[in-house]
Amino acid sequence: MPNAIRILGLDPGLRRTGWGVVSADGSRLAHVAHGVIAAPEAAPLSERLLAIHQAVCAVIARWAPDEAAIEETFVTANGSSTLKLGHARAAAMLAPAAAGLPVAEYAAKVVKKALVGTGAADKGQVAFMVARLLPTSGAPTADAADALAVAICHASSRRARALGAAA
Amino acid sequence: MPNAIRILGLDPGLRRTGWGVVSADGSRLAHVAHGVIAAPEAAPLSERLLAIHQAVCAVIARWAPDEAAIEETFVTANGSSTLKLGHARAAAMLAPAAAGLPVAEYAAKVVKKALVGTGAADKGQVAFMVARLLPTSGAPTADAADALAVAICHASSRRARALGAAA
Repeated sequence: MPNAIRILGLDPGLRRTGWGVVSADGSRLAHVAHGVIAAPEAAPLSERLLAIHQAVCAVIARWAPDEAAIEETFVTANGSSTLKLGHARAAAMLAPAAAGLPVAEYAAKVVKKALVGTGAADKGQVAFMVARLLPTSGAPTADAADALAVAICHASSRRARALGAAA
Repeated sequence: MPNAIRILGLDPGLRRTGWGVVSADGSRLAHVAHGVIAAPEAAPLSERLLAIHQAVCAVIARWAPDEAAIEETFVTANGSSTLKLGHARAAAMLAPAAAGLPVAEYAAKVVKKALVGTGAADKGQVAFMVARLLPTSGAPTADAADALAVAICHASSRRARALGAAA
């Protein structure tokens, strides 16, 4: 894929951060790699955040994505969970930002709509469509499937913008 | 101060992040430096976080602290504000963590109690005590005074632990 770009999708969490890299050439998508980063649970917060950050840096060094995409965080009534997620999300986002990659943000509804056609889709439907659109991805775990989903969403959003600009 | 250690205090925010470095030798405290980092407000979130992170890295490179301290975030009813603060806090914390410094966390009440003697002290009282304990600090702005306050709190907490261990 000479004109293909590689997109890193991130699904951050303080315990597990999913990541996935897809290659997009127009409407053609291909799976490149995916995985899950487990942060050391017993470590102080600063070390857990550093572990997430460094692991995402290593993914970027290994798979050389051109752009990154991440889900917008859903603000819940549980402020403590929201805060933890905010920390993990920042630690993950800083890695592509430090590497000079643009980082796009998508609401969960937008990701679901891009993959399944409706913002009300459940996780199982999203994972099903990820497996269908990226048949060589195997059966990624939920965290990695969500990360691949946001990368796919970014690919289709880029394409829609490019078509819009050309029209 | 041959046995003095330098402590970096951080008061993070997505718009302004206060920082302060104090030197502590037993109960003797000295002001080293302080300042406020203003993140570019119009930039995408990832770039704002990177600006905070890189500025704290530059402070560490310039002032060579041995340890860092940061306030625990107060979870408010406004989930969106909590989330933003969590992002800024993680971006700031990652800098000392990446430099291999331990990062201590203190609840706001604990910082106030250490400075003023009561956890119910207001910001003005904290700033007054910072100016009194660090007479060469001039009149730091509120963000920098809060950062110096958490550094002073860490100095007194370290000393209390050292005295406890020696007893």
